[in-house]
Amino acid sequence: MTPTPPVPRSLAPHGAAAAGATAAAASSGDPHLDRYAARTAGMTASEIRALFAVASRPEVVSLAGGMPNLAALPLDSLGVEVGQLIAAEGQSALQYGSAQGVPVLREQIGEVMAFEAGSTAATGGFAPDDVVVTVGSQSALDMLTRLFVDPGDVVLAESPSYVGALGSFAAYQAEVRHVAMDDDGLVPAALEEALDRLVREGRRAKFLYTVPNFHNPVGVSLATDRRPEVVELCRRYGVLIVEDNPYGLLGFDGQTYPSLRSLDPENVVYLGSFSKIFASGLRVGWALAPHGIKDKLVLAAESATLCPPAFTQLVVSRYLATHDWRSQVKSFREMYRERCEAMLAALETHLPAGCHWTRPQGGFFVWATVPEGVDTRAMLPRAITARVAYASGTGFHADGSGSRHMRLSFCYPPPERITEGVRRLAGVLDGELELLRTFGVTGPRSSATGPQAPAVDTA
Amino acid sequence: MTPTPPVPRSLAPHGAAAAGATAAAASSGDPHLDRYAARTAGMTASEIRALFAVASRPEVVSLAGGMPNLAALPLDSLGVEVGQLIAAEGQSALQYGSAQGVPVLREQIGEVMAFEAGSTAATGGFAPDDVVVTVGSQSALDMLTRLFVDPGDVVLAESPSYVGALGSFAAYQAEVRHVAMDDDGLVPAALEEALDRLVREGRRAKFLYTVPNFHNPVGVSLATDRRPEVVELCRRYGVLIVEDNPYGLLGFDGQTYPSLRSLDPENVVYLGSFSKIFASGLRVGWALAPHGIKDKLVLAAESATLCPPAFTQLVVSRYLATHDWRSQVKSFREMYRERCEAMLAALETHLPAGCHWTRPQGGFFVWATVPEGVDTRAMLPRAITARVAYASGTGFHADGSGSRHMRLSFCYPPPERITEGVRRLAGVLDGELELLRTFGVTGPRSSATGPQAPAVDTA
Repeated sequence: MTPTPPVPRSLAPHGAAAAGATAAAASSGDPHLDRYAARTAGMTASEIRALFAVASRPEVVSLAGGMPNLAALPLDSLGVEVGQLIAAEGQSALQYGSAQGVPVLREQIGEVMAFEAGSTAATGGFAPDDVVVTVGSQSALDMLTRLFVDPGDVVLAESPSYVGALGSFAAYQAEVRHVAMDDDGLVPAALEEALDRLVREGRRAKFLYTVPNFHNPVGVSLATDRRPEVVELCRRYGVLIVEDNPYGLLGFDGQTYPSLRSLDPENVVYLGSFSKIFASGLRVGWALAPHGIKDKLVLAAESATLCPPAFTQLVVSRYLATHDWRSQVKSFREMYRERCEAMLAALETHLPAGCHWTRPQGGFFVWATVPEGVDTRAMLPRAITARVAYASGTGFHADGSGSRHMRLSFCYPPPERITEGVRRLAGVLDGELELLRTFGVTGPRSSATGPQAPAVDTA
Repeated sequence: MTPTPPVPRSLAPHGAAAAGATAAAASSGDPHLDRYAARTAGMTASEIRALFAVASRPEVVSLAGGMPNLAALPLDSLGVEVGQLIAAEGQSALQYGSAQGVPVLREQIGEVMAFEAGSTAATGGFAPDDVVVTVGSQSALDMLTRLFVDPGDVVLAESPSYVGALGSFAAYQAEVRHVAMDDDGLVPAALEEALDRLVREGRRAKFLYTVPNFHNPVGVSLATDRRPEVVELCRRYGVLIVEDNPYGLLGFDGQTYPSLRSLDPENVVYLGSFSKIFASGLRVGWALAPHGIKDKLVLAAESATLCPPAFTQLVVSRYLATHDWRSQVKSFREMYRERCEAMLAALETHLPAGCHWTRPQGGFFVWATVPEGVDTRAMLPRAITARVAYASGTGFHADGSGSRHMRLSFCYPPPERITEGVRRLAGVLDGELELLRTFGVTGPRSSATGPQAPAVDTA
């Protein structure tokens, strides 16, 4: 009897005749394989995840993660406040809340946005009723994709784009088209070309997804003079903008940018987050949306989680009300600036010729490009053996391209560890280039795949 | 010029030619109307929600909500513990966590399930790696539907079924087929008939969704001797079971039932929740799934929220570790028993002839049936005017039927308020019946609609 060859899950039949499906199920070990929905084909695990058990060992310097550094948070006073919150208001703080989010926090979100914009007027104006609190921005991204994307619909995104967004787009079977960036962010001419091409095809993108400030993974920001152009193009072509802004307050010099939303409130859904300016483990973000979309987001939230946790929202609210959060943001900026400088100096000192990288003015990430012939994805296991981890560029492209790039995070390790991590990385690259010069190839290539699920450590 | 008639959102065109869609958009006031995905047609707001602003006034007795009563929780000591958690472990408690959930809580969930089952062996056996922590059970329901349901796929559910589950099924365009219940829960013969009918149609249900213990909204439990029958039928017909068990520990006499999962671990996904035995506002639930499904649930969680909040999980974990949660469950049972007795006594005393209702042994809900000709949905505004609220039976049927029924919750108001609420409700019913006798009709009928989004208050 010839054994049935194993069928990769992503190629498994859906709604197929039971016989073939059952054979596949038997060989995959999952007896439910013939029952999954078609959309699960796009839901694949990050190959990197298998490496995390190793990469998270203390001896490995992880430049892979997007975890904020919480060392500077005032944990003692926060503990006291949250204890009092439970003792005094536990009956409501621990109860179901509104699907739209706790009203007091929606008010305070206005203050946070005004702090970034410079004034309430500069936010573009909005009322607490325009805000929907979400379980992190990831939930907002997922729900927006749910609301707008039918299978095969086009979503425009920067090239490269945030791995978590690509994961949601894949889960709803979107066709992602990447639009070129340069050091000033998204290139308007490239956007117009993508929009034109869709018109010629008789199609229209459902939305443009963009991280305009201190981009994940590239680290650059959309130049101020490009912003009206991007907004105007999307309006003209009838394409909604989803503006994702988790890092906007983390400009090293306190510099901020006008939000795209402030330029066209009726055509932009703005996403904000407390993950990088307070605490990621609370999973509190928000969406600020035109009225009709806001209503549908609330319905989507009811289906997704009934309501976001009232308790985590009230913890954020209590923190904002009782702590000098503006000064805290300023101390985060200083911390990340120092780490970024350490990384840039180390890259300059150690990386071999032919490598280049971005020079961020804020945020968490440097995007590095390696010489032709080096495959960052194939190189990753060797890097981890050398006790340094990074995120391969392939995770940030819907088609799995980007193998000449890597995302280097400076947010989590202290400066001296960053320096050491880059030194190790340079050693691995030197070895790859030596192999390349000698044999014309580096290590075994892995095949390109589509977007990978956003492992938490690459958030 | 003739004005364009308003187009209900749920009938709006999707992917339609721009002209018609734009006209609809203009008349609805939502300029994005022609951009939404087809699935949004199934996402409709509860009509009851508009009444909530009134129904939540203090003078109204709400028998509509499914909110647990948290008055008995030890808030002072919990506040101290959570304050210490932040001060001592804030760096990890406020950080991103695993998409599968915090390991220590997944261990403790085993203890909770063993408490209900009577022993670890009686749970059917599992390891912490089989558990996925979710943002309440609603998130587990939503993700399971995402994993299994293609548009038009069949889901089997009790008649009636939990409104939040129906909301998720609608959001993924499932076709729901209801299966009859009686005082012993789901009727095996009716299940077999539904399964046979599907075979004759050449179709198969993706899963059976069931709340076997202290059912929402009916209040009854699946008889112990029916359980192997239900499990065997589903196995034989190749239909997965989704067993939702938020109330299983709330039997008034401490009585519990063997889980369906313990009878067939490889064909049942079990959903548990801390919302009713601890605190709903933390949104912490869990799924216990066969290995292949568990892996896919983790991927779905990454796309949905990146990870569930680490902090809320650690609050639950700390509570379980430092408080006598088993005694707390026992005191909840006593509280809900007292309230249920108050409701049943008041129904007996006040409700007009021709009404009947279930007699729960646990949980939160009584399901009442009113005389023919009375429409509970049409009656609701009049009830609220009389300062009592309930959930119309129509929300618990995918086709909007069920207007002769209502769900009466005894979980939240104290006994004397329950008695007063039922007295007011009886007055409203008397008025309806009087109208019916005199004119042959009651108040204006509203048209039947599909399932409604699960407003938080009807959770």
